[in-house]
Amino acid sequence: MIHALFDAAANGDRKALARAISRVEAGGAEVNALCGALTPRRSQSPGAPLVVGITGPPGAGKSTLVNHLIREARSLGQRVGVVAVDPSSPFLGGAILADRIRMEEHSLDTGVFVRSLSSRGHLGGLSRAAGQVVDLMDTAGFDLILVETVGVGQSELAVCEVADTVVVVLTPESGDTVQTMKAGLLEIADVFVVNKSDRPGAVKLVGELEEAVELDGFRSYAAPVVATSARDENGLDELVRAVRDHADWCAGKGLAEWRSRRSSGRVRTYLDLVSEHARDQARAGLDAQADLRAALEDGTLNPYVAAEEWVAE
Amino acid sequence: MIHALFDAAANGDRKALARAISRVEAGGAEVNALCGALTPRRSQSPGAPLVVGITGPPGAGKSTLVNHLIREARSLGQRVGVVAVDPSSPFLGGAILADRIRMEEHSLDTGVFVRSLSSRGHLGGLSRAAGQVVDLMDTAGFDLILVETVGVGQSELAVCEVADTVVVVLTPESGDTVQTMKAGLLEIADVFVVNKSDRPGAVKLVGELEEAVELDGFRSYAAPVVATSARDENGLDELVRAVRDHADWCAGKGLAEWRSRRSSGRVRTYLDLVSEHARDQARAGLDAQADLRAALEDGTLNPYVAAEEWVAE
Repeated sequence: MIHALFDAAANGDRKALARAISRVEAGGAEVNALCGALTPRRSQSPGAPLVVGITGPPGAGKSTLVNHLIREARSLGQRVGVVAVDPSSPFLGGAILADRIRMEEHSLDTGVFVRSLSSRGHLGGLSRAAGQVVDLMDTAGFDLILVETVGVGQSELAVCEVADTVVVVLTPESGDTVQTMKAGLLEIADVFVVNKSDRPGAVKLVGELEEAVELDGFRSYAAPVVATSARDENGLDELVRAVRDHADWCAGKGLAEWRSRRSSGRVRTYLDLVSEHARDQARAGLDAQADLRAALEDGTLNPYVAAEEWVAE
Repeated sequence: MIHALFDAAANGDRKALARAISRVEAGGAEVNALCGALTPRRSQSPGAPLVVGITGPPGAGKSTLVNHLIREARSLGQRVGVVAVDPSSPFLGGAILADRIRMEEHSLDTGVFVRSLSSRGHLGGLSRAAGQVVDLMDTAGFDLILVETVGVGQSELAVCEVADTVVVVLTPESGDTVQTMKAGLLEIADVFVVNKSDRPGAVKLVGELEEAVELDGFRSYAAPVVATSARDENGLDELVRAVRDHADWCAGKGLAEWRSRRSSGRVRTYLDLVSEHARDQARAGLDAQADLRAALEDGTLNPYVAAEEWVAE
């Protein structure tokens, strides 16, 4: 049943894909086995599909940029998958809302598939799920896969790491963000975007980022800094070009670095899966043992002691 | 040896505390056992010490507010511990930098102990470590413990949950943040601060937050919205009062809700510990089996398949 669902999804059936993604979101051994049996085209070489991660603080204008990337890919006849990772509450259905308000422009276009993922409260599950959805979309033949997350914290950056090309979107208001996160951003950004570049401070931020990229000794790819103004459509073509340039670099001179990033990604996925499995097992243990849960909740059993006992069993 | 270190830390030895926190940051069974043997004063009742979480986007002015809370507590003769959770890269030593640049005002005051924690790339370890450091500082007799994190994403909110009173700091620029994160923020904020309230949009944001708090049906405590301007010191006394008010509520009418939040926190800590342990074991497994790591890295072994095999062993 679920096997047939994944087969149909991999063969391009949109309804099956939507339902398979719901299963991926819920997780579990069966889903992991099915995803493990997929043969994504991207597993050994970059570029087909192009997988682009886009992150930045709320209000930075990511959706407008995403819409432009979709429009451009559609004009070339490409099929586009979008995974929007929603950082809002796991309890109040933020992801469902996001599905409704996002990407309205493309809602009737069957060449575009948009899906949100919510976090269920822990990071491991989210990057695991994002990676599996990308593999599903890859196998289903999408040409461009966009992974959009909100924020520039550790967790958002980790989710972005399932992508081959990472675009970090900032605005003149995020000057302090850049100071705080400089090291983390430089490590992961392949393209910087300064959006809302008509606002005061944009030129300064572009300069700071360019300087930081130049001084950075850790990366062999110098991330370009693109100034965009989504409102008057300035810089959008430069953004498309910057993304394509990085993809070309991955397939050419940067192949060794691309492979190394994919390798680290596989190891991280493995560790995420193991730790998520352990968490699920422990949660099931609490459900099965009411006295254990009660002792933890009322504080008579210390969580550190309980965890040691659980893992020793 | 490490046992004596934790004893000395719990008895108020600053050097021992600093070294014990380094051990907590690194994690492991021995550390968990020692932390499990601590008897924090706060384990059964709130208020002694007061544990306050402060989160908000980079550049919101959190450090200024933290400094004011420290100053106020010091004027009452209280000892203050600060845990600053740094979201920057686990690789490039962001935490060390933060240690140096933060809290210079109090650097010579032996009644103030400031320590940063970095994330090592996964959330479970970070909230586990933050909780253990709070327990250590509690046992060591600090009167006020501040847990500062940068960001308002899922992970930052989770770290804040080790606190009894959570202060979410926003600025007029974070209007969009509020829209995106409304549900998550309402769930966790006990006090909202609109800092930089001399800037355009502040009145509007205060109004939106007040309306959201009023419409929220999930919480029995109506979080006040405090407008501050750290530059001209407006609203800082109101912030102190709002924090004390919530602490009083926890010790009085809100005791049941405080207990329930502590219970959820203990369960989450337990699950974090179990999943972090599994991750550490799997990482050690990769270190011990070079062929397993190589197969994962070069893509001949699928991470989903490898994880299933590992957990089945």
